[in-house]
Amino acid sequence: MEKTVWWCLVLTCLLVPLAGAADWNILKLQTHDGLKISLKNYCESWRMNVELHNIREFQVVPEECIEYIGKYVTSTQYKVDSQRATEECLVYLSTSCNLKKDGFDAWIFDIDDTLLSTVPYYKDNLYGGRKLNVTSLEEWMKSGKAPALDHSLKLYDELKSRGVQILLVTSRKEHLRSATIDNLVKVGYYGWTKIIFRDPANELVSVEKYKSDVRKKIVNDGYRIWGILGDQYSSIQGIPNPKRAFKLPNPMYYVA
Amino acid sequence: MEKTVWWCLVLTCLLVPLAGAADWNILKLQTHDGLKISLKNYCESWRMNVELHNIREFQVVPEECIEYIGKYVTSTQYKVDSQRATEECLVYLSTSCNLKKDGFDAWIFDIDDTLLSTVPYYKDNLYGGRKLNVTSLEEWMKSGKAPALDHSLKLYDELKSRGVQILLVTSRKEHLRSATIDNLVKVGYYGWTKIIFRDPANELVSVEKYKSDVRKKIVNDGYRIWGILGDQYSSIQGIPNPKRAFKLPNPMYYVA
Repeated sequence: MEKTVWWCLVLTCLLVPLAGAADWNILKLQTHDGLKISLKNYCESWRMNVELHNIREFQVVPEECIEYIGKYVTSTQYKVDSQRATEECLVYLSTSCNLKKDGFDAWIFDIDDTLLSTVPYYKDNLYGGRKLNVTSLEEWMKSGKAPALDHSLKLYDELKSRGVQILLVTSRKEHLRSATIDNLVKVGYYGWTKIIFRDPANELVSVEKYKSDVRKKIVNDGYRIWGILGDQYSSIQGIPNPKRAFKLPNPMYYVA
Repeated sequence: MEKTVWWCLVLTCLLVPLAGAADWNILKLQTHDGLKISLKNYCESWRMNVELHNIREFQVVPEECIEYIGKYVTSTQYKVDSQRATEECLVYLSTSCNLKKDGFDAWIFDIDDTLLSTVPYYKDNLYGGRKLNVTSLEEWMKSGKAPALDHSLKLYDELKSRGVQILLVTSRKEHLRSATIDNLVKVGYYGWTKIIFRDPANELVSVEKYKSDVRKKIVNDGYRIWGILGDQYSSIQGIPNPKRAFKLPNPMYYVA
């Protein structure tokens, strides 16, 4: 009996590392200049370069990185990365913004993967490894089941409590208006000042141009845009620039 | 004898995971909203948010992340991340740039942690965990021992071979000119078109303003700046914008 216990222990100890050896984490690839790297190294560098905005306009997540990206967007790390971004918004607000509290201090938020998470949708679509099917994505959006990103909700509430006007600028189209509002309210977002959807005329220009044009109107209306929180560079780049922009990670898709 | 072997195996198998348990990787921290995270989660989110430009103007690497940052900048991952950035420069050049080859196609490079690595210096200075001592850093720069970043050298040579004019714009000061040129040539960089150092007048303005002003002159001289490769946002932001900017990772220090 005692001998059997040892055998089990020994076998377990030996087999666990062996099983690990088959893991994609340590499969060795070789880059052009002979550097030996793992698939994890490769996919992590892909993700990092997406966030650095060195890689742009990608249509799908590289097939070999689908598993890695899926793990990331459902991980604690993704939560912590996003949480840190929202915390930095508050640091900035507290240290660098002289709010006038006249009803014209404003903050812009994206909706998808900023306030609401589309990870449940992308989970069923290879985490961005399958080319975007707008119809199926909009079908999902209409169902109004997107969960909140918790740390974004916290920031949203904090901004509201400081008297900052909240402006939601989304590339969702007008026909999704009521489903989107229902979804937002259901998960805890309410009390915004404006919510702006893309109307058919705006669908002809890039999201960056559409969102910049919206900012132009917002500024003309007298608002001071203290900051933007978004997950896409197209939400935070372009003239007029906000005073500061904060980017949440999003390696699942790219919106130009 | 056989029994002794089993004992050793069993003990090794048991002790290795136990030793691992003391690793900083799995020490549990708790964030504000109760999320249980490891120190690695925390430091990785710090680094990611530095690269996303959500965290700015940091004076030192957080003390608790010195070990993590040291590991990263001496890791394969750092090499792969940087290599991917330089590869994307070439993808862009090949697919989106219509070079005129009239001697006015230009590319701008930073020097520190873009062409030359300061990691050996920071290795002796807590990888950015110690507040910058300009005198000691410049002393090290004068010694001319900075190694090349291999993938940057490759990109540099490739750009040269395609007839692109190479412009080096550094925040190193004029008095480091000859040591810097010696260092660059020694590790393989030569054949640039211009190298621009900060003169005392420029030391009064921010690096972003200095580098933007340099770009203004470069554009006025008739150059088309197709791209910039740098490791700091201050090297790639500001007017005039280049057509594209590529950022290398650098979590050791921040230059405003």
